[in-house]
Amino acid sequence: MARGRLIVLEGAEGAGKTTQMRRLTEQLEQSGISAVAVREPGGTPVGDAIREILLDPASQITATTEALLFMASRAELTAREIIPSLEAGKTVLLDRFFLSTYAYQVMGRGLAEDDVRAANSIATQGLVPDLTLLLDVPAGEGLGRADKRGGRDRMEQTGDEFHGRVGEAFRTFCKASWQDSHPECGPIKLIDGRGDEAEVYQRIVEALAAGFPDPFKALITLRK
Amino acid sequence: MARGRLIVLEGAEGAGKTTQMRRLTEQLEQSGISAVAVREPGGTPVGDAIREILLDPASQITATTEALLFMASRAELTAREIIPSLEAGKTVLLDRFFLSTYAYQVMGRGLAEDDVRAANSIATQGLVPDLTLLLDVPAGEGLGRADKRGGRDRMEQTGDEFHGRVGEAFRTFCKASWQDSHPECGPIKLIDGRGDEAEVYQRIVEALAAGFPDPFKALITLRK
Repeated sequence: MARGRLIVLEGAEGAGKTTQMRRLTEQLEQSGISAVAVREPGGTPVGDAIREILLDPASQITATTEALLFMASRAELTAREIIPSLEAGKTVLLDRFFLSTYAYQVMGRGLAEDDVRAANSIATQGLVPDLTLLLDVPAGEGLGRADKRGGRDRMEQTGDEFHGRVGEAFRTFCKASWQDSHPECGPIKLIDGRGDEAEVYQRIVEALAAGFPDPFKALITLRK
Repeated sequence: MARGRLIVLEGAEGAGKTTQMRRLTEQLEQSGISAVAVREPGGTPVGDAIREILLDPASQITATTEALLFMASRAELTAREIIPSLEAGKTVLLDRFFLSTYAYQVMGRGLAEDDVRAANSIATQGLVPDLTLLLDVPAGEGLGRADKRGGRDRMEQTGDEFHGRVGEAFRTFCKASWQDSHPECGPIKLIDGRGDEAEVYQRIVEALAAGFPDPFKALITLRK
């Protein structure tokens, strides 16, 4: 049986990842394509316990602890969900992965990149995504969307300067030079995240079908 | 103000660390020496939440997640308790640190040592213990003691072969060659953990006073 594809959706707060993930998962199901959608942090019993600690606005967590908790959740998700699903031939859709770590923990919090990459290497057992779609929205627009949907969690509550650095980080990841020096991230494709949900969804499906006609071409047919 | 000393107690399950830590802390208090006793995992609100996940016999945790959770707890303890206490001139007594990680996660679980050391380096911010006292008890005797005091936690429940590797690891750490290649652990002194509690305590106090007359010489006076 052919190994499944690991597809990652990335982007800053409010870029629309969660909405697009839900739509993509529904459409894959309707097309009879075997897919699994998971999110970080969480996705396993231990990961969900870690997620509670990480997102609780009452938690006082240092930057290093935060990074290691994200990695612990990732390790569990990788070993229990992602690798077994890929081996069973399923498409795995992942809401956040390496790029979020490099954006939030390295460039946002200022941790040493080499140390974070080493911890990441423990967590992921060398897994490389087949494609990462990076949803890009102009600085400031994303958090405005996040505010509209309700209260901010602990990560979202961090100051605007932090989110400025995170946004800048995601733009850095679009550069070929950055991608060449970070082979663990696999190929990254920038998706314009502006406009209505259906437009953005169309861009995502086209990018997926261009890279992997099997299984994603079926989604384009479905839309027409 | 002079920086305090960081003293670590290490050893396999049932080596007597916790009993000796309690006695040492009480005697330091009676001597009017400002000391803080902390244990891993735990010692902070976030660390205690992590400890619950780690020791719960119902938790299903992969080896990599386990290592990263221990490191997350260590990061929090280092930043919030150990470093501020040392800077305030206090003696810090620590129940488990690097050696436990190398014994349980690297040699017991078989994780890659370089990766675990890198994660450790994130967690500890380069902190090196002033002295580690390694309580040595013959293989098998330790877990017997642990059984006498009640039910085994998740770590203690792991099979005898695992605990055999852990015991072997602690004996490896006594070698000068191992210590030379692991400068992050600082000096390690082997303490014979056999015999009654008072005898072992006396050996500990003498080792501490030999290394650091200030503040530990006061404990010997107290005993006589």
